[in-house]
Amino acid sequence: MRLAEHTTTTAAEALETVDVAILPVGSTEQHGPALPLGTDFMAADAFAGTLDDRDDVTVLPTLPVGVSEHHRQFHGTLWARPETFEAYVTETIESIASHGVQKAVIVNGHGGNVDALSRAARRLRADNVAFAPTWNWWESTPELSDDLFETEGGHAGPAETSLVLELADDLVREDALDEAGEGAPEGWGESVHGASVGFDTIDFTPTGAVGDPTEGSREAGEELFEAASAELEALVDWLVDHSFESLLPDDHV
Amino acid sequence: MRLAEHTTTTAAEALETVDVAILPVGSTEQHGPALPLGTDFMAADAFAGTLDDRDDVTVLPTLPVGVSEHHRQFHGTLWARPETFEAYVTETIESIASHGVQKAVIVNGHGGNVDALSRAARRLRADNVAFAPTWNWWESTPELSDDLFETEGGHAGPAETSLVLELADDLVREDALDEAGEGAPEGWGESVHGASVGFDTIDFTPTGAVGDPTEGSREAGEELFEAASAELEALVDWLVDHSFESLLPDDHV
Amino acid sequence: MRLAEHTTTTAAEALETVDVAILPVGSTEQHGPALPLGTDFMAADAFAGTLDDRDDVTVLPTLPVGVSEHHRQFHGTLWARPETFEAYVTETIESIASHGVQKAVIVNGHGGNVDALSRAARRLRADNVAFAPTWNWWESTPELSDDLFETEGGHAGPAETSLVLELADDLVREDALDEAGEGAPEGWGESVHGASVGFDTIDFTPTGAVGDPTEGSREAGEELFEAASAELEALVDWLVDHSFESLLPDDHV
Amino acid sequence: MRLAEHTTTTAAEALETVDVAILPVGSTEQHGPALPLGTDFMAADAFAGTLDDRDDVTVLPTLPVGVSEHHRQFHGTLWARPETFEAYVTETIESIASHGVQKAVIVNGHGGNVDALSRAARRLRADNVAFAPTWNWWESTPELSDDLFETEGGHAGPAETSLVLELADDLVREDALDEAGEGAPEGWGESVHGASVGFDTIDFTPTGAVGDPTEGSREAGEELFEAASAELEALVDWLVDHSFESLLPDDHV
Amino acid sequence: MRLAEHTTTTAAEALETVDVAILPVGSTEQHGPALPLGTDFMAADAFAGTLDDRDDVTVLPTLPVGVSEHHRQFHGTLWARPETFEAYVTETIESIASHGVQKAVIVNGHGGNVDALSRAARRLRADNVAFAPTWNWWESTPELSDDLFETEGGHAGPAETSLVLELADDLVREDALDEAGEGAPEGWGESVHGASVGFDTIDFTPTGAVGDPTEGSREAGEELFEAASAELEALVDWLVDHSFESLLPDDHV
Amino acid sequence: MRLAEHTTTTAAEALETVDVAILPVGSTEQHGPALPLGTDFMAADAFAGTLDDRDDVTVLPTLPVGVSEHHRQFHGTLWARPETFEAYVTETIESIASHGVQKAVIVNGHGGNVDALSRAARRLRADNVAFAPTWNWWESTPELSDDLFETEGGHAGPAETSLVLELADDLVREDALDEAGEGAPEGWGESVHGASVGFDTIDFTPTGAVGDPTEGSREAGEELFEAASAELEALVDWLVDHSFESLLPDDHV
Repeated sequence: MRLAEHTTTTAAEALETVDVAILPVGSTEQHGPALPLGTDFMAADAFAGTLDDRDDVTVLPTLPVGVSEHHRQFHGTLWARPETFEAYVTETIESIASHGVQKAVIVNGHGGNVDALSRAARRLRADNVAFAPTWNWWESTPELSDDLFETEGGHAGPAETSLVLELADDLVREDALDEAGEGAPEGWGESVHGASVGFDTIDFTPTGAVGDPTEGSREAGEELFEAASAELEALVDWLVDHSFESLLPDDHV
Repeated sequence: MRLAEHTTTTAAEALETVDVAILPVGSTEQHGPALPLGTDFMAADAFAGTLDDRDDVTVLPTLPVGVSEHHRQFHGTLWARPETFEAYVTETIESIASHGVQKAVIVNGHGGNVDALSRAARRLRADNVAFAPTWNWWESTPELSDDLFETEGGHAGPAETSLVLELADDLVREDALDEAGEGAPEGWGESVHGASVGFDTIDFTPTGAVGDPTEGSREAGEELFEAASAELEALVDWLVDHSFESLLPDDHV
Repeated sequence: MRLAEHTTTTAAEALETVDVAILPVGSTEQHGPALPLGTDFMAADAFAGTLDDRDDVTVLPTLPVGVSEHHRQFHGTLWARPETFEAYVTETIESIASHGVQKAVIVNGHGGNVDALSRAARRLRADNVAFAPTWNWWESTPELSDDLFETEGGHAGPAETSLVLELADDLVREDALDEAGEGAPEGWGESVHGASVGFDTIDFTPTGAVGDPTEGSREAGEELFEAASAELEALVDWLVDHSFESLLPDDHV
Repeated sequence: MRLAEHTTTTAAEALETVDVAILPVGSTEQHGPALPLGTDFMAADAFAGTLDDRDDVTVLPTLPVGVSEHHRQFHGTLWARPETFEAYVTETIESIASHGVQKAVIVNGHGGNVDALSRAARRLRADNVAFAPTWNWWESTPELSDDLFETEGGHAGPAETSLVLELADDLVREDALDEAGEGAPEGWGESVHGASVGFDTIDFTPTGAVGDPTEGSREAGEELFEAASAELEALVDWLVDHSFESLLPDDHV
Repeated sequence: MRLAEHTTTTAAEALETVDVAILPVGSTEQHGPALPLGTDFMAADAFAGTLDDRDDVTVLPTLPVGVSEHHRQFHGTLWARPETFEAYVTETIESIASHGVQKAVIVNGHGGNVDALSRAARRLRADNVAFAPTWNWWESTPELSDDLFETEGGHAGPAETSLVLELADDLVREDALDEAGEGAPEGWGESVHGASVGFDTIDFTPTGAVGDPTEGSREAGEELFEAASAELEALVDWLVDHSFESLLPDDHV
Repeated sequence: MRLAEHTTTTAAEALETVDVAILPVGSTEQHGPALPLGTDFMAADAFAGTLDDRDDVTVLPTLPVGVSEHHRQFHGTLWARPETFEAYVTETIESIASHGVQKAVIVNGHGGNVDALSRAARRLRADNVAFAPTWNWWESTPELSDDLFETEGGHAGPAETSLVLELADDLVREDALDEAGEGAPEGWGESVHGASVGFDTIDFTPTGAVGDPTEGSREAGEELFEAASAELEALVDWLVDHSFESLLPDDHV
C-alpha cells in the first residue's frame, strides 16, 4: 500500500497487517548533462514502488530534497543541511512508529544522505522507537555492477545512467552522454596522500559525472533494477522474520 | 518546467528565463474516513502543475510531510516539528535562490503549515535571499466557497472533498462521506470564552472532519480548482511584474 | 494573589488553594502615533489584575517583550525571536507547574505572540506538564466589537484605542488619533490573489495603525474591558471545573 | 523616559537625545520567609526608575523571570534556562540598538543571572551591536555594605532585606526575619576542599536565606539605595562620555 | 588508573572498584610572555595525575581547549563556545556514568571554564546522571596564596607562575617575567562604578598577565602543588564517603 | 612546534612562518581486550608529533574524545555527540585561523569521527575560514596494508595492533590477542541484502575487534608508521605549495 492513498480508516485496517514501513528518500541535484536532477528520488520511489502490493508493507511518501550542498555549484541543485534532513527523516519515522509500525527501510537514492540517515537510524534504535536501516540500491548488487561495467558505477556514471534509462528514459538526454563523460574521473572525490581534498563535486569533475556514462544501457538498467529489487524484497523479508525486540541493541557487555 | 525533469545543463538554460519558483508543500495526515491521507500534498502538487508550462516558472518537487502533530491520534498521520519543516522549506528556497531565482510562491495545501511558512518567508526576505509568500488555495476564492456550500469549507469538509473529487476521485471513499460528517463540528477548533482549548483535532471532531463533507461534488471541485488556479496564475503574474528589490522591506521609517 | 508579592512561605500556603496560574504576556511595539508602545503588556497586565483576588488563582509577573519583529521599522519596537519567546513562556509555566499548579491561562495582549503560544501550549500538554490555553482579549467578545465600531478592531484601531483610554488614558495622545488613522487600511495585512504579501507592518500601513482609531472612546473601552474580563473569569471557572487529567489529550483513536 | 509609555512618534523624537538604554532584569524566586518572591526584579526596576528623568536615557521594560533553577525546590520560584534568558536579553538589546541606541546598562537584581548576562554582553560587543555591561547593585558599594552589616550581605540577607524595606516595606514580613536567619549560613554556597558542592540553594540553607536578615533596617536600605543609585548614575555618565566606537574591542594585539 | 591506558577488559575489572572519575579540563590560551599557552590544561593534568594510583579513581583524558574567547586577541589562544565546551564535558561524564561511575571531579585549570562547568554539573545532577563538582586548584588553598604572595594570584600571576615552575620549568621563559608584569593590573577585569566593563583581557592588561609574576618561585610552586593536591585528595575521600543517592538534590521543600 | 609549549609572544614570532596547523583528534573507546582505550588519540598524537620540528607547521593539542557512541556497550568507552564533536573541532580551527593560519590537517585516529570532520571541513571552507582536510592514517597506505596482512586492517585488527606495538607496546596486552580475534568478523559492520544493520559494534563482534589481531607485529607497525608519516609529510608539503585562495571552492559553474 501507498500510505498516502489510504484514508485514515482504511489505513487503520491496513496497518494491522503492516510490519515494515518504506521511506523513499533522494535528492534533487545535478547528475551531469544527461541525467535528470530528480534521478535520486525517482530511483528511490521506483524501488519503493516494487513493494507496494505487499500487505506487510506501507510505502510512505518520497522525500525529494537531501544532503547535496556539495553539488551546489551546478544549476538546479537543491539541498538541506544535514541536521535538517536528519530531523525530517527521524520525525517521519517517529510518526509511523506511533501508529505501531516500528520497523522501516529507508530506501535511499543518494550517497550524500547516508551519514545523516545513519545518525537518524542510530538515534531511533537507541530510543526504542524504530529499527530503520538504510538501503542503498547501488550497494545491494556490487558483483553485478562489476560484471556489467568496466568503469566504476559512481555518481551519474554507467549504473545510474542505466537505471534511469530503465525507469524514465524520456528524461535521459542520450545525446549528452558523451559530453557527460568528458573529463570525468574514474572514481568519486579527490585524494591527496590519503586525505580527501575534494569537498565539492566541482573540485574534481567538470561535468558533474563520475565514470563513463556511455557504458550505460537499458538492458543493464533492467538487470540492475530487477536484481536490486530482489535484494530489497529479501531485506524486507528478513525484517519481517525478526521481532522488533530482537533488533534492539544490548545495553552493555 | 518541473525542475526535477531537467538535467543540470538544460536547467541552466531554462533558468535564464525563470523568474518565480513554485514550491508545493502539503502534509500526509488524516482527512476523515473518506479522503486520502495525501490530500494536502496532492492538492498542492496539482495547483503547482497548472504552472509548469510557463517559461518564467520552475516547479520544485513537492514536500509531502508537514506540521500535523495535532492530527497524530488518527491512523496514518505523519508530521515534522514546526522548526524542522520551517528549516526544510527555508533551505530548499535558499538553494533555488542561489541559482538566481529569488522570487517564489509556496503553494500550500495544509493550514497547519502556515505559521512555519510565515516564519520562513519573513526570514528569507529579511536576509535578502528571496521573496516567498505562501499561497493557500482555500483562501484564494473565499466568495466562491461561500456560494457553493452552506457549511464552512474546513478540514476534510465540502471544499476539500470537492477538490479531491476533481483531482483524484479514485481515492475518495464516497460511501464514507456520510460517516465523515457524523458528529463533525461546523468549524475548526474548540473555543471556551475566547480561548482556544482544542489543541488536537481529536479534541473536537470524532471523525477528523470539519463541516459537512456530503455537500462536496465533482462540479464544485472543478469550479474551485479553476478559480483558484486563476488566482495563482495572477499571483505569479504580479510577482513577475515586481522586481525583487521592490519587494524587499524598508529598513526603518 | 500576585505571586511576586508573596514570600516563599506565604506562597506555599496560598498555592494550596490555587488551581489556575495566570501568565500575562504582551509586547513593547509601535501602536501608531497615539497609543503607547507598552499597550499590549499593559492590557494583559490589567486583565490579569482582575483575577488577583481569587484564592484559586495566582498571577505571575508580566512578560513585556514579544514576537514583534514585523513592527521593527517603527521607533521603539522591541522583539524576541519566536523560538526565544516560546521558550521563555514554556519554562515559566513549567516552573509554576513544578509547584503543583498545572492549569494556566496565558493572558495575551499581542496577536504576533499567538503562534508561539500555541506551540508552547501544545508541547506543555503533550508532555503532561500543564494545560495552558491562550486567551486573547480581542477575540473574547467579537459581537460587542462589531456593535461598538464600524471599522475592524485591529492593531491600534478603535478597540485597542478604547481599551487604553479605559486603562491608562494619560498615555494616549488623543490629538494624534486623527493622524493615526490617515492612510491606515481597514484590516490587517496585504493580500494579493490569496497570498499574504505584507510581511512587515510597514508594508501596508504608513502610521502603524489599522482601522479608524477615532472611533475609540472611554465608554467603549469600559464596556470592552468589563465584558472581556467577565469572559476571562468564566474561562478560569471552566478550568477550575475540569480536572487536569480530563484536559489531557487522548493517546490515539 | 520609560520607553513603554511613549508612542512610536514621541519615541522617535525622544530617542534622538538618548545615548544609553537601561534594561532592568531580575528574577521571581524565593527570598526566604520574609522577603517577597519578586525582590530581584523590583530592585532592578527601582534602580532603573532613578534614571527615567534623564533625556539621554531610555528605560526598557523589566524582565521578571531569570536564571533561578537553583532555587526551584522553594515554593513559588520561577526560572528560565540560561540559554533562554541570554537570548531574551540579547534580542531585546538588539532591538533597541536597531533604533540607534548602542550603549546599554543591564541593571540586574539577581546573582544567578550574571553569567548569562556576561555571555550576552560579550556577544553583542563582539558583533558590534551594542556595549551593554551588567550593573549589580550589591557590588556597586562594597565598602558601605561592610560598614553597615556584620554578616555578609548575601541572598535574602541584611543588605537585601534593607533594600526591600526601603522600596516596598509592605511586602516584607518583618516578624519572619528571625525565622529567616535560623540555620542560615554566613555565606553563599557550600564548599568542600575547594570544590563548590552546593548546586541548589536547598543544599546549604534550610530557609532560603544567607546571612543574618535581622541586621537589615530601613535606614540601611535608604543609605544603600542612595549610594548605589549614585554609582549607577555615574556609570551612565561614564558611558555617555565614551563613544560607542571607543568601547569596542581591539581586533588583535 | 588512567582510563585510556586500560584495555576494555582490564577497564571492566578496574572499574569495579572505582568510585570517582577525574576529568581534567583546561585551556590553550595566552598566559603572558613568560608562561606557556598550555598552562591551564597542563596544570589540570598534573593535579589529576596525583590520583592515578588510587584504585577507587579513574582519570579520564584531559580536554585541552576551553572557554577562552576573551583572550582571543593574543597570539595562539584557542577557544570553544561555552555551549560547545559544556556539551563536550557533559557527554564525556555521561559516558563514564554509563559504565557505573556516577561521581566525578572536574579538575579545572581555567577560570573561564567555571560557568560552563557549573551548568554541566547542575544538569548532570538534576538528571540523576552524575554528581560532578568542579575543583579549581587556585581556590583550594586561599590562605597559602595570601601567605606566599603580596599581589593577587590571578591569571599568569605569581601563583600560576610558581605552579608552572614546579610542573614544567623548561616551558617558563623566566627572563620574560619582568616584561609580563609591566603594566599588569593587580586584579582581574576592569570595573566602573560596580559594572564590569572589561570583557576581553586585552581591555585591561597589555601583556596578558595579572598580578606580579616575578613574585613566583619554584619553592612556592612546590608548596602550592602539594597543598592543593592534598585538598583534592581530601575532596575525593569526601566523595567516596558519600553515596551517590545522598548527593542528589531534594525534590522540593 | 607544539603550540601549547609556546608563550603567546614566542608563538607570535613562530606563527609568522607557520602555514599549516595540525589538529590531532581521536577517541577513547574500546579496542578489544588487547589494545588500550586511548589507541586512537595516541595514534593521532604520534603522527602529529612527526611534524613538530617543521617551522611551517604548528601542532595543536590533541582532542581525546570523539564520536564513539556505537562502542558504548563496551567498558570504558567515552563519546560525544556528532554535533558536539563537530563544533569543538570547528571552533578550535576557527581560533587558529583567527591568528592567520588558514590551512590545517586534521590528523584523525578514529573512523567514527570522519563524517563530523567532513561537515566541519566543508563549513570552514564554504565560510572562507580555513581549508582543513582530514587525514586518516589507515587510508594513507592501502597497498602496504594489503601486503602486510591477510585479513582486513579494521578496528583493533592487525594494522592497528601493529601500530600500537610500535608506538606504545607497554599498553598492548599481547597475551590477549588470541582472545581478541575469537569470533571477530573479517570486516566492519553487518550487512543484510545491501543494508547496514549493525549499528553498534556489539551487534557484530563479541570482543570488539575486527580482523585477526594476531597478524600484527612490531615490524609491521614500524613500516606502517614510517610509510604513513611520509604520506602525511607529503600532504603538508602539498598544502604549503597551494595558496589558501587556490583551495577555495568555485562559486558556481
